[in-house]
Amino acid sequence: MKNIKKTEMIGKEGMVLLDTIRRLNRRKAKDRLQKIIEKTHPADIAWIFRHLTPHERSSVFGVISHTSQVGEFLSELDRTFLQELVINLSPLYLAGVVEDMSPDDAADFLEHLPDDFAAQIRNLMGRKDREEVEDLLQYDSDTAGGRMSPDFLALDEELSVEEAIKWVQENSEELEMAFYLYISHGDEGQLAGVLSLRELLTHKPYRQLKNIMNTNVISVTTDTDQEEVAHIVSRYNILAVPVVDSAYKMMGIITVDDIIDVIREEATEDFLQLAGAGKDREILLKSTLDNAVTRAPWLFASWIGGLMAVFIINFFQDELQEVLALAGFIPIIVGMGGNIGTQSSTIVVRGLATGRINLNELSKVVFKEVRVGVLLGTLYGIMLGGVAFFSFADSGKLGLVVGLSVVFAMTLAATVGAFVPLVLKRLDIDAAIATGPFVATSIDILGVSAYFLIAKFFLNI
Amino acid sequence: MKNIKKTEMIGKEGMVLLDTIRRLNRRKAKDRLQKIIEKTHPADIAWIFRHLTPHERSSVFGVISHTSQVGEFLSELDRTFLQELVINLSPLYLAGVVEDMSPDDAADFLEHLPDDFAAQIRNLMGRKDREEVEDLLQYDSDTAGGRMSPDFLALDEELSVEEAIKWVQENSEELEMAFYLYISHGDEGQLAGVLSLRELLTHKPYRQLKNIMNTNVISVTTDTDQEEVAHIVSRYNILAVPVVDSAYKMMGIITVDDIIDVIREEATEDFLQLAGAGKDREILLKSTLDNAVTRAPWLFASWIGGLMAVFIINFFQDELQEVLALAGFIPIIVGMGGNIGTQSSTIVVRGLATGRINLNELSKVVFKEVRVGVLLGTLYGIMLGGVAFFSFADSGKLGLVVGLSVVFAMTLAATVGAFVPLVLKRLDIDAAIATGPFVATSIDILGVSAYFLIAKFFLNI
Repeated sequence: MKNIKKTEMIGKEGMVLLDTIRRLNRRKAKDRLQKIIEKTHPADIAWIFRHLTPHERSSVFGVISHTSQVGEFLSELDRTFLQELVINLSPLYLAGVVEDMSPDDAADFLEHLPDDFAAQIRNLMGRKDREEVEDLLQYDSDTAGGRMSPDFLALDEELSVEEAIKWVQENSEELEMAFYLYISHGDEGQLAGVLSLRELLTHKPYRQLKNIMNTNVISVTTDTDQEEVAHIVSRYNILAVPVVDSAYKMMGIITVDDIIDVIREEATEDFLQLAGAGKDREILLKSTLDNAVTRAPWLFASWIGGLMAVFIINFFQDELQEVLALAGFIPIIVGMGGNIGTQSSTIVVRGLATGRINLNELSKVVFKEVRVGVLLGTLYGIMLGGVAFFSFADSGKLGLVVGLSVVFAMTLAATVGAFVPLVLKRLDIDAAIATGPFVATSIDILGVSAYFLIAKFFLNI
Repeated sequence: MKNIKKTEMIGKEGMVLLDTIRRLNRRKAKDRLQKIIEKTHPADIAWIFRHLTPHERSSVFGVISHTSQVGEFLSELDRTFLQELVINLSPLYLAGVVEDMSPDDAADFLEHLPDDFAAQIRNLMGRKDREEVEDLLQYDSDTAGGRMSPDFLALDEELSVEEAIKWVQENSEELEMAFYLYISHGDEGQLAGVLSLRELLTHKPYRQLKNIMNTNVISVTTDTDQEEVAHIVSRYNILAVPVVDSAYKMMGIITVDDIIDVIREEATEDFLQLAGAGKDREILLKSTLDNAVTRAPWLFASWIGGLMAVFIINFFQDELQEVLALAGFIPIIVGMGGNIGTQSSTIVVRGLATGRINLNELSKVVFKEVRVGVLLGTLYGIMLGGVAFFSFADSGKLGLVVGLSVVFAMTLAATVGAFVPLVLKRLDIDAAIATGPFVATSIDILGVSAYFLIAKFFLNI
């Protein structure tokens, strides 16, 4: 519970603090600035940095770098700002800062610096800290290995409760998140069981750990994907999960506060990807140009789709010439399709992300969407057909054409919207990435084609 | 760590278990079924229930209700299935089950039953359990009070470390999630500080708690919104947050495993709402008809928007008659607008949900989206204008009209997409609820209007 809530900051309080820091910085009142920073939680200072200009960031960081909070602050800081702030500092100073961080934060920090610079810092670190960090750096950053902390409580199963408590009393100084005692077996140190500290306290001092430990331990391996770790932690309501290597030796621990970050980050990435806006969760911090560059490719997909629609509609010029009113219904037919398709694909993408949809049920999920599409398509088709029939009386068939087109467009759209993410997932492609633009584009093309084919058919009768 | 991983179930393993349970149920092999259920984590059985038919659910639940896991199972079960399973059981039996649940799960369970039925069950519960549950039931279910558990470790600050350890040893049997010892002050029992069990162990036995506790405790009040609790827990990396009443007396505790559920649920609701698919996170479990009923209203908004577009386009019949090729470009102009608008609104809605956007920065956020809109609009306007110019050479002005329209439509769309959720939020309306349909509809109307006004202007020159 170290460093917790000095100043808590939600909404208005945050803006007040932001103003104060800005004002003190403008006045170059460094001492008062430093005092305020020392009283504020590093996570809150990191939040404030999102709202400062680059110049302000650089000068406020000058003050932070003289406080003991610099390590924690750098762990909390948005990665977008990292390089601009630290690249001018000496590697020797940074080596000291990194040594004070928890090993998993240190590894994460170094991973976001240019390779050369990170190597210089690592070489200046003390041997023990350096080795711990280098061990972590060998794992992929989105696996359990890349997320775990090597600081955990683990003791041999032959020890007694008394010996265990004594060990905790003497050796746990640096283990802030120590709530469970993990128990290992044999020379290889294989994970054998677990006890919460509370349970440890409630047993008789002479009992051996192996006789009282819980042997059903949920664990993950170092190469388990972080999303799967999040699934496990949230399904089984546990506060920490041990990470083992292939020989079942315990290598680290992932606490649930890190899992929360994973869940939020993955949700944000899914939101952005589904809208075709990249997957960088710091997109709000990017420049206009970077923003445009990230978003342009996905718009290109809909541009191509739209272009195909241009040529399809043009192909039906004769029908259009004959019944000019056809043109007016293009947006509503394409739009109703687009909207129900978005509903379907969102439900499926989210269902896949939360584990509610199992790939073995592909057909069940798709068929339900088909039924919903038919139902809603018929409803809105009749409504639109009615409007068309009564408003454009000079062409009696228009109501029929428009109504049928809505049924087709919405049914097709619901089907495509559900089908595409499921197929992508089965092909092991992230369902969120490609679903949005792909569904939108194919619905445009399918909707327009269905509409004009139906029009051609009925108008020629 | 009780009841953790009996059978862990991700993906294929889950389907195997599902098949086994189905087969045993079909064969009416109740004993073997019961054995398997007792070996399986209740969360996994709840998962399996999503994939059973109503008939299977009822008969498998018959077996579950004879195991000691029934309470935990009911806490994990999707609310959609709750009533159908328990409504035929006797209130007396259910009172026993509810007494065995943790109080917060019990309150949540009772809240999802018909009022009469829940009252009957409550009246049959033992006094202590009933009072605990009734205390919780008075809070709104999406506030800290509604989410908290009344089981926590709290002691007076005058006690010594030795006394505290003794108390934990003797009284914490039922406190599964006890990792922090909260320390109170005075007769009113105001929250004064906190110690982790590990810290407690490392201090000398004679020291008084008040001299060693951490006095900076982050807490929330019973009426704090659960979303804000989630923000606090994830920002400050804590594993549990104490809940206090207005007199700062500790009433309960929220552990981070409950917060994970909040974060997932809120993200799922935002996903669905943004797509105009309601906000029921169990939508995949609903019938086709319920599904359609949930989704119909939001589609109605786009139906109205589309209808207005019909009349707008019809208003420009003369221009359309003159240059028939105008019709073909309707979907791409509306579509490019719709897609960039979705990007903008998604970025803003998610930014608001994660606290990255502060309402005081409304104009900054909107203006950036305007710039991105101009930039991308110009890019795709030039591209489309070029295609139109070269493909439809008989009408030289078409390229200009189409190109300009894309610029306008995309800029307007990005602006509206960013502006609408910010304004909704400022009016204290959930930004996710109304943004999707509102933005889609207004972009349809604005895009079509801009296109034909531009066309009218240039074609009349």
